[in-house]
Amino acid sequence: MNFCSNCGKTVIQKIPEGDNRLRYVCGACETIHYQNPRVIAGILPIFESKILLCKRSIEPRIGYWTLPAGFLENGESSLEGAIRECTEETNATVINPELYGLFDIPQIHQLYIFYRAELAEPIFGPSSESSEVELFSENEIPWNELAFPVVELCLDHYLKDRKTTEFSVKREDIRRPWKSLRGSS
Amino acid sequence: MNFCSNCGKTVIQKIPEGDNRLRYVCGACETIHYQNPRVIAGILPIFESKILLCKRSIEPRIGYWTLPAGFLENGESSLEGAIRECTEETNATVINPELYGLFDIPQIHQLYIFYRAELAEPIFGPSSESSEVELFSENEIPWNELAFPVVELCLDHYLKDRKTTEFSVKREDIRRPWKSLRGSS
Repeated sequence: MNFCSNCGKTVIQKIPEGDNRLRYVCGACETIHYQNPRVIAGILPIFESKILLCKRSIEPRIGYWTLPAGFLENGESSLEGAIRECTEETNATVINPELYGLFDIPQIHQLYIFYRAELAEPIFGPSSESSEVELFSENEIPWNELAFPVVELCLDHYLKDRKTTEFSVKREDIRRPWKSLRGSS
Repeated sequence: MNFCSNCGKTVIQKIPEGDNRLRYVCGACETIHYQNPRVIAGILPIFESKILLCKRSIEPRIGYWTLPAGFLENGESSLEGAIRECTEETNATVINPELYGLFDIPQIHQLYIFYRAELAEPIFGPSSESSEVELFSENEIPWNELAFPVVELCLDHYLKDRKTTEFSVKREDIRRPWKSLRGSS
């Protein structure tokens, strides 16, 4: 950040009165420009015993498999955002969503919120963001070709929970370096 | 938003290529300035059968009672942020935190994350953000003097759950206008 989005003059870094952190503050109009973590909302889409994944056709991690998820937008709830992202990335319709995971990634200022949900029907397909969309059974999951640690973590929890049918809400931090849970890479 | 924080030139509103929403985009350097909901992390602090609340000494809602909570900062997890806010606002130390509520308020681009936690000892006190900090039993809670609907919602869930000792994680939207659950105002 170099300039004030309010008045266009130069910003400086300083600790505002009553605060204890360095912020970008406008030297002219004194607007404080806070910077905060962003929320990424997504779905863990299930059909019968299979999980729907999509292959990313955009950076970052183009060509790797992921759960449908994306940045939460102003004006929508985390559930609405998760369902929107799922529709945009997989062309699937999901029902019965339940909060499943809250995963913080403080080093990159991100917080993921995942909902478990069922595909209403096995209807899905590629989109502008996904070159392929496929259902995977447990032994077909491409552990070494997953896009992000958070995807591996969420899938790992789900597959363990499924053995007990107890799907409690998960809350974890993801710290780097990440040690893969199941993949060999 | 009037000016580009990167280059200082004027921003315009337009839908970027491949997007479907109006964004602020710099007319000169073409930086897209995304705006996203912000996370507020907080604690529901319990000591024996009482709940710790603080009276706000800052706007908005100065003079009204609230649960300790505040904007999540870059570099911290939602749990770290919740504990930091609790310490800053109540001078209390909490133990055994458990995720308890995820409450979306899409109309004001906010998402609250509350953790239940216990006070290690009944030690707490006012701060620069709280003029008073007090433990309340159920029949002492100032329902008509609570600062925000999300505080009422979280307390209401907790008091109901406590009767069953089943504290499942809650996920709800708060929409305006808000119809008070317990207060008369």
